[in-house]
Amino acid sequence: MAINLAILGATGAVGQELLRLLEARALPLGELRLLASPRSAGRQLQFRGETRTVQAVSPESFEGIDVAIFSAGGGTSREWAPIAASKGACVIDNSSAWRMDPEVPLVVPECNLEAGRARPKGIIANPNCSTIQMVVALKPLHDAAGVKRVVVATYQAISGAGARAIEAFQEQCRAAANGEAVDPGPLKGQLAQNLLMHWSVDEASGYQEEELKMVHETRKILGDESIQVSPTAVRVPVLHAHSESLTIELGRPMDAAEARTLLAAAPGITLVDDFAAGAYPTPLTAAGTDPVYVGRIREDVGNPGGLQMWVVSDNLRKGAALNAVQIAEGLFA
Amino acid sequence: MAINLAILGATGAVGQELLRLLEARALPLGELRLLASPRSAGRQLQFRGETRTVQAVSPESFEGIDVAIFSAGGGTSREWAPIAASKGACVIDNSSAWRMDPEVPLVVPECNLEAGRARPKGIIANPNCSTIQMVVALKPLHDAAGVKRVVVATYQAISGAGARAIEAFQEQCRAAANGEAVDPGPLKGQLAQNLLMHWSVDEASGYQEEELKMVHETRKILGDESIQVSPTAVRVPVLHAHSESLTIELGRPMDAAEARTLLAAAPGITLVDDFAAGAYPTPLTAAGTDPVYVGRIREDVGNPGGLQMWVVSDNLRKGAALNAVQIAEGLFA
Repeated sequence: MAINLAILGATGAVGQELLRLLEARALPLGELRLLASPRSAGRQLQFRGETRTVQAVSPESFEGIDVAIFSAGGGTSREWAPIAASKGACVIDNSSAWRMDPEVPLVVPECNLEAGRARPKGIIANPNCSTIQMVVALKPLHDAAGVKRVVVATYQAISGAGARAIEAFQEQCRAAANGEAVDPGPLKGQLAQNLLMHWSVDEASGYQEEELKMVHETRKILGDESIQVSPTAVRVPVLHAHSESLTIELGRPMDAAEARTLLAAAPGITLVDDFAAGAYPTPLTAAGTDPVYVGRIREDVGNPGGLQMWVVSDNLRKGAALNAVQIAEGLFA
Repeated sequence: MAINLAILGATGAVGQELLRLLEARALPLGELRLLASPRSAGRQLQFRGETRTVQAVSPESFEGIDVAIFSAGGGTSREWAPIAASKGACVIDNSSAWRMDPEVPLVVPECNLEAGRARPKGIIANPNCSTIQMVVALKPLHDAAGVKRVVVATYQAISGAGARAIEAFQEQCRAAANGEAVDPGPLKGQLAQNLLMHWSVDEASGYQEEELKMVHETRKILGDESIQVSPTAVRVPVLHAHSESLTIELGRPMDAAEARTLLAAAPGITLVDDFAAGAYPTPLTAAGTDPVYVGRIREDVGNPGGLQMWVVSDNLRKGAALNAVQIAEGLFA
């Protein structure tokens, strides 16, 4: 059965990744409508060798649409998701606007695809990139032993900040490599050969919103409000793929061999875990690929019975576009 | 009273930093002997406007020397430190060769300068760069409330890997920024726009030696074998200054305000901690300066009563050369 699909935000970094995935994957497409704000409307995009013109979003854009994938920011999503849903489309939304709404399921197919079947508002939320790769890696451990607490430090690529940020970063790298002055531009500082923490801040707690998403979204996806998360989010001078150091406390002791067996059998995960031989995941090798890569699985030298591991995945793929497509495939194909 | 000082490894990255520090600081110098392996002997270095010739190390090099700072690798140190000590010099050694020897004090002046006065082998060890900045930040919290456990994820600059690695990294950055093929060279992979974990591995535990140093050296410096450390060490594409995400469990609850007060009053620390206003430490601003910078001090959302913070310091300065000079100043000046 063919699916009529709309993409709102087709011209952005995630929108472009969505088109590449839809070209390559087996989701049976009926109509495909490429939508954007009036500002980006009229742009032409290639899809399967054909030129498509991006249309300005309107209520009529969603007539006859089965699934609408939104990747156009929180404000656009808050305005347009209820309209699309009222036309009968299932909205899969990449922004943070709806994620913590109790009437909106927050879905990572490897963890809780079935939660997406009950969607009283007609909206399914796609989690934050940092959360997605973490919960894919935690899920098999949580099922086996109960995750009690995770300390996570991220090493996040710039690509999630959008096409303009990618360009600014590349220009910064060029300038820094040539000893020229570096323009902070839209990155709120120099990222080339430096580290930044430039997400918006929750003043009461001192946490970045990016960090609090990992706290709250993890609990919602794994369905366990008792899970504790201690997060630090850092932007590193890497183009594609987020990396995370995870330190995990479980409800019972687990050795590295058991964790390795569980993770090797889990969906969506590729183990790269022969560290003594030099094999571990890196962002450069993860970029442009689908899996969540897990390596450096080891028994925590600082907490007997606990584990540490290293998780890397392409933030525009599994962290955004791929997860949205997998939700559509799992629920509608 | 003037001090006769020898530097073994004067031509390396840390050796060069030592000379810059000695030029600028108040340590009263008598004779200064610049020493190196026969391979580097004969090279000429500038010091306070004069040209000095580096001499090949020999037993006679240490006659009449009060303090010998070694920065020439573990093998050289194992061979030459006992010889220098037998000539009456106090060896301050930057390598890992002697750090865990129970008869060799491991000293960070802000933490345990007095331990350096008892040195049965005539040797004082300078800790690992990652450890030094961490213990400077932990010390005031440990004194006030007892550090029970630290989860640390590092974001380490390349400069600690030496002059050849710095050159290789800069060439990688140039190639990557220009879209050319990147030579892995001596870095064991591409570090430009990527992350590496390329330290030697302890096969039994799966930890990098760099990580285990943080476990064992922290206990020795803070004088508390019960402190637990869960470490992850990552090389990031940054030239100078290491950054660390610390998640700290204490013997009693401590709020962020108390931690801030303690850290602001502690020696060697500069707070950069107005995160809502965009102020936090970065490697780019720490490079070439002396302090251990601490910011993002916050109450751990994942462990009530615990803390999280972000610690940045120049790994060639406080992480190596400066700490060695401070030991000499504290004990001999």
